[in-house]
Amino acid sequence: MKNITYAFTAASAFVAMPQTASATPPPPLNYTPEILRDSALADDVMAYEIVEGLTTEIGPRQGGTPAEAKARAWAVQKLKSIGFDNVRIDEYRMPTWVRGEETAEVTAPFPQKLAITALGNSGSTGDAGIEAEVAYFPTLDALRAAPDGSLKGKIAFVSHAMQRTQDGSSYGAFGPARFVGPNIASKKGASAIVIRSAGTDYHRNPHTGNTNFETGVTPIPAGALSIPDAENLERMLALSQQYEGKPVRLKLKLTPKNIGMQTSGNVIAEVKGSNPNLPIIVIACHLDSWDLGTGAIDDAAGCGIIAAAAFRLTWMGQPKRTVRLLWAGAEEVGIWGGKDYGAKYVNEPHALAMESDFGAGKVWAVDFNLPASAKPVRDQITSALAPLGIVPRQQVAGGGADIGAIIAAQKLGVIDLQQDGTKYFDLHHTPDDTLDKIDKAELRQNVAAWAATLFLLANYEGELKPEPKP
Amino acid sequence: MKNITYAFTAASAFVAMPQTASATPPPPLNYTPEILRDSALADDVMAYEIVEGLTTEIGPRQGGTPAEAKARAWAVQKLKSIGFDNVRIDEYRMPTWVRGEETAEVTAPFPQKLAITALGNSGSTGDAGIEAEVAYFPTLDALRAAPDGSLKGKIAFVSHAMQRTQDGSSYGAFGPARFVGPNIASKKGASAIVIRSAGTDYHRNPHTGNTNFETGVTPIPAGALSIPDAENLERMLALSQQYEGKPVRLKLKLTPKNIGMQTSGNVIAEVKGSNPNLPIIVIACHLDSWDLGTGAIDDAAGCGIIAAAAFRLTWMGQPKRTVRLLWAGAEEVGIWGGKDYGAKYVNEPHALAMESDFGAGKVWAVDFNLPASAKPVRDQITSALAPLGIVPRQQVAGGGADIGAIIAAQKLGVIDLQQDGTKYFDLHHTPDDTLDKIDKAELRQNVAAWAATLFLLANYEGELKPEPKP
Repeated sequence: MKNITYAFTAASAFVAMPQTASATPPPPLNYTPEILRDSALADDVMAYEIVEGLTTEIGPRQGGTPAEAKARAWAVQKLKSIGFDNVRIDEYRMPTWVRGEETAEVTAPFPQKLAITALGNSGSTGDAGIEAEVAYFPTLDALRAAPDGSLKGKIAFVSHAMQRTQDGSSYGAFGPARFVGPNIASKKGASAIVIRSAGTDYHRNPHTGNTNFETGVTPIPAGALSIPDAENLERMLALSQQYEGKPVRLKLKLTPKNIGMQTSGNVIAEVKGSNPNLPIIVIACHLDSWDLGTGAIDDAAGCGIIAAAAFRLTWMGQPKRTVRLLWAGAEEVGIWGGKDYGAKYVNEPHALAMESDFGAGKVWAVDFNLPASAKPVRDQITSALAPLGIVPRQQVAGGGADIGAIIAAQKLGVIDLQQDGTKYFDLHHTPDDTLDKIDKAELRQNVAAWAATLFLLANYEGELKPEPKP
Repeated sequence: MKNITYAFTAASAFVAMPQTASATPPPPLNYTPEILRDSALADDVMAYEIVEGLTTEIGPRQGGTPAEAKARAWAVQKLKSIGFDNVRIDEYRMPTWVRGEETAEVTAPFPQKLAITALGNSGSTGDAGIEAEVAYFPTLDALRAAPDGSLKGKIAFVSHAMQRTQDGSSYGAFGPARFVGPNIASKKGASAIVIRSAGTDYHRNPHTGNTNFETGVTPIPAGALSIPDAENLERMLALSQQYEGKPVRLKLKLTPKNIGMQTSGNVIAEVKGSNPNLPIIVIACHLDSWDLGTGAIDDAAGCGIIAAAAFRLTWMGQPKRTVRLLWAGAEEVGIWGGKDYGAKYVNEPHALAMESDFGAGKVWAVDFNLPASAKPVRDQITSALAPLGIVPRQQVAGGGADIGAIIAAQKLGVIDLQQDGTKYFDLHHTPDDTLDKIDKAELRQNVAAWAATLFLLANYEGELKPEPKP
């Protein structure tokens, strides 16, 4: 930290701290992680201000686009104004896909429009669109079971039964309809594919997200229907079967395009540690968002949480280890920022990585992947988090997308502060991901959990990397 | 009722009725409104099937369009299959406005797209769109207070603070931003107007609805922003004021057009009474919907409720009075069906009118406008409704849009079964008005309340028109 300018502009951040009504920072006396935690819990405005700024002043900021570049400039200014050290941008180049027009309508037997959005990497229907019979698959497994060539000239429609889960694990169970459904449908000869959005809400806002085609597989037009529209289409298919025997036909227009290699980048900032020999801790969020919403929960919230927690860490005096913030670029469209970070910093010693990229819901559990020798710090963290309603689990912490590359390269220690994701997939990758979805009290609880955890980790000098797996 | 065909296709409608496992209708023995009510409460599938059919097989059905004509044909077939008497269409002609393209984006100082929809009767920006500075009014009263001519070359933005209310009365308080805001802005010289949607949700689905321009006032382009977008625009205006001093500029493209006189129509059906000398009872819903959603709560639900209740009425044997169903056309776009009904049937004696057009939420109160002499039937209705959680109020029943003309022409008695509208304006006139928003148990409670009320009214031979006002 270079200075405390920001702290004293956002004066209310201090109300819970004793003796701070002066122009000097609070002295690093006998503060504890509990004091740090409770001050954040009582009143943290910084995290919310970051979400508000990104969603209002920038809005949607897809990786590789000019909006993402503006977000990087905004981020540098913000992180410098807070007072972080070594604020900088690491640029890289990446292939970029952008959305075009998108419409869908049932043309027979019950003509009406459906709400659709293209999946990232979708092919184009061309301006003329595609009109074809719908081939219905209630599950991805049913699509997998379709004979090769059986989808020729048809539009595949894959549905599923994704439900809300606290830990978000239903995304793992039902997300593959999006991740791999289009690739499978293309290989079976489909002209196009629509899926029931990988989401859990009932609004007419379809969920986008990347899909991927294997090399040599034609990228067919691939879209997601909103859940009310997917259910309407299912009812039409059932009725058509029952009363008419007539096929249901769909007309799709999706005109996305690939605009070639573009510039994206990571924004980096640090709280410098006092001991340069200690491997650093990297904490990540992603700065980019999908283009439909303003990226409040995905992932301005994560950037707000880690910045506010790292800022509060400095109140305790200089930590022993350096804590590095990675506001990653282009996560949604292929984790380009995370991969670039892993490659660029592969030779700089890291100890541990953490990520916040699951909205702004309360942290309810903590998972660890630490060596047995780190039991003392693990126990301290568990104790500090318990009053926030956070319980330790048996699961081994896995990290997140943007820290995946550096964790794999250096076999890092990981701590996951698991957020309640019950409503996350109501909003994920939709136009509805906007500032109003942020619960300020829950956001503060995140900052409190992160601040206490970071304080304990950054002042712990022992080994944090887990034992090598046999 | 001509027959009971429908009843025996939808066999489950009978499970709560004793001794009906035959091909004959249940005999009109000593049934009571309570038995009728409770059978509907336990199991009514017809109302839901009507909502499902209209939303799935027809979808959006704006007044004056081919989709509304298809809905009339569907309705005639459905009402005949249920077995109602005198099923017919009364056509009329009406001027028709249809939506075009619609986009909005902030161009400075924080460029991003906003979710917008045109209000009914909006003027067009032309294909080139309009780009202008935003003039902000936190309330409609603030717009009213703006000096004449002060909006020249600007786009007015009117916000408000509409909140959820059980009785829906906030629509009366905040709806005028839509009803008259555009007319006021045009008279003050504005190039266009955008309002915060008259709604109470936080989704990126703007609320449409009619606005009206006085004769001689230019119909300027008029749109509604979704509530998250309206709040984002308010934040931009505040930030711009605070830090930049730069005006916020908006680019609008709204290209609706008037397509001249088109055909619309009411669908009429009856349960014939045994005494042709008794003035009839008319019960109404509207068949048309706005074009953005599939019109589940507005107002397929109302049509399902009144049809299911009238169908159940026939189980009690022929009523004394004729009960007429009015599935009105073109309500949303100017109450054309209701006005046509009032004019066409002005000389046919009516006694009382009721309407269901406030979604599918539970009935929680009943209001009356009856003569003092009708106290016995009023008391019977109150008693029959009490076990459904419905309380009588002091308010004088006013009816609804589609029965307004006939009530005024003949000074009819009115009973209002007031539905819980707490969430109604989350969905009203948005793309989100879809089948999944219907709560089947609440829908059944509506049918139960209507069935008991209709039975008591249709067999009451006394006067139902209130005393003339002094």
